[in-house]
Amino acid sequence: MSAIDDRLFELGLSLPKAAAPAANYVPYAQTGNLVVISGQITLLDGELKYLGRVGEEFSIEEGYEAAKLCGLNLIAQLKSACGGDLDRVKRVVRLGGFVSCTPTFTDHPKVINGASDLMAEVFGDKGRHTRAAVGVLSLPLGVAVEVEGLFEIE
Amino acid sequence: MSAIDDRLFELGLSLPKAAAPAANYVPYAQTGNLVVISGQITLLDGELKYLGRVGEEFSIEEGYEAAKLCGLNLIAQLKSACGGDLDRVKRVVRLGGFVSCTPTFTDHPKVINGASDLMAEVFGDKGRHTRAAVGVLSLPLGVAVEVEGLFEIE
Amino acid sequence: MSAIDDRLFELGLSLPKAAAPAANYVPYAQTGNLVVISGQITLLDGELKYLGRVGEEFSIEEGYEAAKLCGLNLIAQLKSACGGDLDRVKRVVRLGGFVSCTPTFTDHPKVINGASDLMAEVFGDKGRHTRAAVGVLSLPLGVAVEVEGLFEIE
Repeated sequence: MSAIDDRLFELGLSLPKAAAPAANYVPYAQTGNLVVISGQITLLDGELKYLGRVGEEFSIEEGYEAAKLCGLNLIAQLKSACGGDLDRVKRVVRLGGFVSCTPTFTDHPKVINGASDLMAEVFGDKGRHTRAAVGVLSLPLGVAVEVEGLFEIE
Repeated sequence: MSAIDDRLFELGLSLPKAAAPAANYVPYAQTGNLVVISGQITLLDGELKYLGRVGEEFSIEEGYEAAKLCGLNLIAQLKSACGGDLDRVKRVVRLGGFVSCTPTFTDHPKVINGASDLMAEVFGDKGRHTRAAVGVLSLPLGVAVEVEGLFEIE
Repeated sequence: MSAIDDRLFELGLSLPKAAAPAANYVPYAQTGNLVVISGQITLLDGELKYLGRVGEEFSIEEGYEAAKLCGLNLIAQLKSACGGDLDRVKRVVRLGGFVSCTPTFTDHPKVINGASDLMAEVFGDKGRHTRAAVGVLSLPLGVAVEVEGLFEIE
């Protein structure tokens, strides 16, 4: 087991099964040392979770959990991209977070923290990333949160 | 003619005229081997198409065609970025798809497939890309779809 | 003072204090020669500006000023990323602009020009960038505009 696998175990986290894309694209692509990962939604081992909007069906806290699930899916895809060895991750470079919410919602940062806190917990200093978080009108399949990622590996 | 030009011809596809940006920016920028292409909208040789929303004025199928047109504009810009030689394209790395739609719309993946299927048809294995697809409130000039792209060239 | 600092002075522009992120992430990350900067909002030295929507509380001209403020914050972060020397900036590669607006708003390009014109004025030819501009339902803390950036430095 890699050090990052140990860390996931310590944190009591298990990675979901890396999901197949919902359409004609791939979950990740490597160019140079960069790994780009497709927008991950709130799928847990094939089952859709968190269908609805933050600020309506879901509280900020539930939105946080939804973003954390997206983050776990990102790490699952990243593990595949690394040939199974998450110790090859050099840096979480960027997360792009999309929150399906109400027009008056303003707490997107607190929601996307679900993914950001996860990266910090799992990858430590290497998990320090940039991000953009915005509120969108609707997301694929009706999920509440989608997060995409850019990573540097070695 | 390049192999990709042949392929476009076989598919019965002709590239639109690479559009000038709607404002003070450039259509593409190269950094290292990466080519970043600005968000392309549904312009066909200078004429705006698909003004409205998917789920309202446009069906999923029409949205698919709108996304395909954005994809053709991406390839037209990419051709310029490659000095006319699309065989220099090594990989379609990422597409970012924005769908102007209704709040209850959930079929963004089927819409953005219009661009994704095009990349797969034109570039084959090199066209296998990551992507993020989201539903937005409104898009520049009132178009239904916008797609941006990241490519690796040699 | 660097040539770019001189240019900022000539233009009568002063950079805002580089803002700390609103949550658990970092303002910028470097990978290779690329600097990715987190989505910047309309903060002026710690004070939130432009709370509301373009097309409702704010005109296109005010949206332009809001985007310019986001752009100034991007340059402030970029200066930190460059260890204080903006002459190390080789290219503004991409801006991603998000406009909180009304469903019928179509002038996103004119709004995001506030950031694009700034990059052209400050960095000249090196400021020629790609971009995507979209209209979103809501933005963090209720701001009207958010802009993220990708830069190449040396």
